[in-house]
Amino acid sequence: MEPRITLVTLGVADLVRARAFYETGLGWPVSSASVAGEVVFLRLEGVVLALYDAGKLAKDLGRKLDGGTARFTLAHNARSRDEVDRIFRRAEGAGARTLQPPQATSWGGYSGHFADPEGHVWEIAWNPHFPFAADGSVVIPE
Amino acid sequence: MEPRITLVTLGVADLVRARAFYETGLGWPVSSASVAGEVVFLRLEGVVLALYDAGKLAKDLGRKLDGGTARFTLAHNARSRDEVDRIFRRAEGAGARTLQPPQATSWGGYSGHFADPEGHVWEIAWNPHFPFAADGSVVIPE
Repeated sequence: MEPRITLVTLGVADLVRARAFYETGLGWPVSSASVAGEVVFLRLEGVVLALYDAGKLAKDLGRKLDGGTARFTLAHNARSRDEVDRIFRRAEGAGARTLQPPQATSWGGYSGHFADPEGHVWEIAWNPHFPFAADGSVVIPE
Repeated sequence: MEPRITLVTLGVADLVRARAFYETGLGWPVSSASVAGEVVFLRLEGVVLALYDAGKLAKDLGRKLDGGTARFTLAHNARSRDEVDRIFRRAEGAGARTLQPPQATSWGGYSGHFADPEGHVWEIAWNPHFPFAADGSVVIPE
């Protein structure tokens, strides 16, 4: 089995608001394959981020979904402390709620956490131990 | 802001069990940067999958985390219906719990969902509308 995540899907209650946050707020490109009222596909580097109606997701999975803070986070690594701060300001301006403002971390980096308008949590981090590859992903030791 | 997810972090109650599922069960490579009892970094294509102690994650976020089924899923696209079936059998053998066996979908593909030993949900899908790029990610329309 190839070691790969193809899509990350976030269940959302308000698809219009969620799309506005990622498309207009963060400036990320939306695919024309998106389906109004159902799913928005964001074309990230090497992975697709899908915003999907939470009711339809619950139906697909045949179960009730939790509405609070999940046991998962998404991280976006920036190239400098300054970039972390800039991204935070941009996200806050777009409606993100800060959980922890950017600060020095115990592991020698700099990071903060925010929740998107649906409560999904992002960490924005500068990590001097994980350098960037040419394609923008990070390089971690084998 | 670059359109990128650098890491996907899953909070887990049993790090040893979770590592065994992904490393031995699915055969995915673990980074030597992993920290025993705290975090396991899996080196996927273009993104890092981190398994992280759920108690530490809750502390980082300053909040209680939900323990049930979250409003998010991860998807792994396979190259054929047969590969979907093979991956499902492998995951089941490694301790995954099937939520929905692979079957034809309304959108013309073939997919199923399972939960990993911690309850995190994966969709394994064959999608004829999303062809593969050379690097193994999928190509979706602009």
